[in-house]
Amino acid sequence: MLDSPSPKRTPLSDLGEFALIDRLTAAVEIKAPSTKKGVGDDAAILDFEDSEVLISKDLLVEGVHFDLGYVPLKHLGYKSAVVNFSDIYAMNGIPSQLLIGMAVSNRFPVEALEEIYAGMLLACSRYGVDLVGGDTTSSQSGLILSVTAVGHVPKGTAVRRDGAQAGDLLVVTGDLGAAYMGLQVLEREKAAYQANPNLQPELQGHEYVLERQLKPEARKDLRPLLKDLGVTPTSMMDVSDGLSSEILHLGTQSGLGCTIYEDKIPMDPQMMHLAEEFGINPITAVLNGGEDYEILFTIPIAEWDKIKGNPSLTPIGHMTQDKVFQMVTNAGQSIPLEAQGWTAFQGE
Amino acid sequence: MLDSPSPKRTPLSDLGEFALIDRLTAAVEIKAPSTKKGVGDDAAILDFEDSEVLISKDLLVEGVHFDLGYVPLKHLGYKSAVVNFSDIYAMNGIPSQLLIGMAVSNRFPVEALEEIYAGMLLACSRYGVDLVGGDTTSSQSGLILSVTAVGHVPKGTAVRRDGAQAGDLLVVTGDLGAAYMGLQVLEREKAAYQANPNLQPELQGHEYVLERQLKPEARKDLRPLLKDLGVTPTSMMDVSDGLSSEILHLGTQSGLGCTIYEDKIPMDPQMMHLAEEFGINPITAVLNGGEDYEILFTIPIAEWDKIKGNPSLTPIGHMTQDKVFQMVTNAGQSIPLEAQGWTAFQGE
Repeated sequence: MLDSPSPKRTPLSDLGEFALIDRLTAAVEIKAPSTKKGVGDDAAILDFEDSEVLISKDLLVEGVHFDLGYVPLKHLGYKSAVVNFSDIYAMNGIPSQLLIGMAVSNRFPVEALEEIYAGMLLACSRYGVDLVGGDTTSSQSGLILSVTAVGHVPKGTAVRRDGAQAGDLLVVTGDLGAAYMGLQVLEREKAAYQANPNLQPELQGHEYVLERQLKPEARKDLRPLLKDLGVTPTSMMDVSDGLSSEILHLGTQSGLGCTIYEDKIPMDPQMMHLAEEFGINPITAVLNGGEDYEILFTIPIAEWDKIKGNPSLTPIGHMTQDKVFQMVTNAGQSIPLEAQGWTAFQGE
Repeated sequence: MLDSPSPKRTPLSDLGEFALIDRLTAAVEIKAPSTKKGVGDDAAILDFEDSEVLISKDLLVEGVHFDLGYVPLKHLGYKSAVVNFSDIYAMNGIPSQLLIGMAVSNRFPVEALEEIYAGMLLACSRYGVDLVGGDTTSSQSGLILSVTAVGHVPKGTAVRRDGAQAGDLLVVTGDLGAAYMGLQVLEREKAAYQANPNLQPELQGHEYVLERQLKPEARKDLRPLLKDLGVTPTSMMDVSDGLSSEILHLGTQSGLGCTIYEDKIPMDPQMMHLAEEFGINPITAVLNGGEDYEILFTIPIAEWDKIKGNPSLTPIGHMTQDKVFQMVTNAGQSIPLEAQGWTAFQGE
């Protein structure tokens, strides 16, 4: 319903494989110094000199990860790229290349694929990343995007999930839970539209949560910020699932537990108001919601002074020798943190 | 019909996301010196020191690229990995890492995914490649595999498609057309089985073409062979589509044309007999068939002596200044070479 009208519809069958690839990649430019050869050969050629290479991969399936009923194709392309850049930032790295696979059914015209590519290329251009390869093929139903992001990091400076120490402060960027509330708004308006197609969607006043859901950004500012502050994280990951399972990953891989404090969790007021409207506890959106694409990291407690008062960085708890994961609520109770993660197979 | 009986069927919904990933990656070992960190973090960490990095990506869709009616899952996993290694060899590189994305519908039990993984890991082990990452998710229908291969090559020694010179000899490894004939046998036996499920498939005597289709190997022997012979190719690519469109790619990207000779094309006798049985001209299987995963490359004519008589290497023609692509037939006629490539969108 947010999609722009696309008057021209060229059937995919009008183009062969090679003409389609040529058309989709016509606007691709190579800018990153590490890209020696992009699309058009058996493989891309990259040169990272003394840096280590980071590589991450994601598969996005229509009806599972996105709903074209309310996700504009260009936003979908943008988001698919950005969430993969987020994985590279979450290693303290810099994304530099992207490879895209698309499987599409015949119901998509060529122009739809061009919209997706336009979104991906916009993200690439904003983040200084080159599109260097991929594959486009048909599917029997729906749209599937496969995204591989490549980045780099000076040798020995990648920050993994398993380096946290007992006593370390757990810090998060930005605020949490808004992308999940954005999804609730979209689902509500979709249901209203299905009940009455003449209804205009009520999206006013929800700009922040909708943007967090439809057009998230990755924290490219964190790496230079930590450098300026002179802070070296001991562990790091991005918050793509809910905060709860991310903390369990980080703690488990570091062989530790973690205590967080509900009153420390950064939440946007718009998100909190909406949660109230929907009858959802905002902390539930934070712990189990997902898609925030903020960065979670640990620093030695001695470095607290360096980040104190920084509006982008919020300490929310600390790592513990005891392998116990808990949150101290506003009421002073301790409740266990539980893994939610992805349960797409359930209930199908 | 070739699949081994798999008595245990654990529904995917019995496992959560994290338990499924743990189970699938339990057998993953890291061996390549360039792998610093594999699965389990936001991104894999690789270190290629002074080498350039090669990266290639492929999307394989059930019903488009494979038919589970006759492709055993373990073979599918093996082939998906190997065809991506082939892309790295086709740059004169050495594959070293693999990332796998799988989207699967609920009709697949966990054991089916384990079979696919087992095939991929077998290929990895045979080719000295580490599985370092990926993503597993649900799909609404069918199975989709997304494969990213990473490799490396000493700086400046990658061989691209665009380096051929007029007068260069065009050389191909192995023999061509057999994978296509293997597919014809499988399609025939599938049709016979559907007509009468009590029929046993007649696969005896067709081992070579079936193996070329179901379990192809990539030409890892070519790089050391060329080194031994002291030959430096000017351009190189793999034969994954039919020979015809591959020659058009290589010639067009090099700004040249090409003349090949039908009587020089290497074909296996079993393939030729089968083509006769099916009433197919064997040269059609070669030009338009695909999935041979041999390597096509050009060398200066002055280097002909170095490869002469080598059973793995067959000169089949030469590059021309004229941008004309033609084959001289056994009858002495010149016929134009035409792009076929992938036309999966057609006829749907």
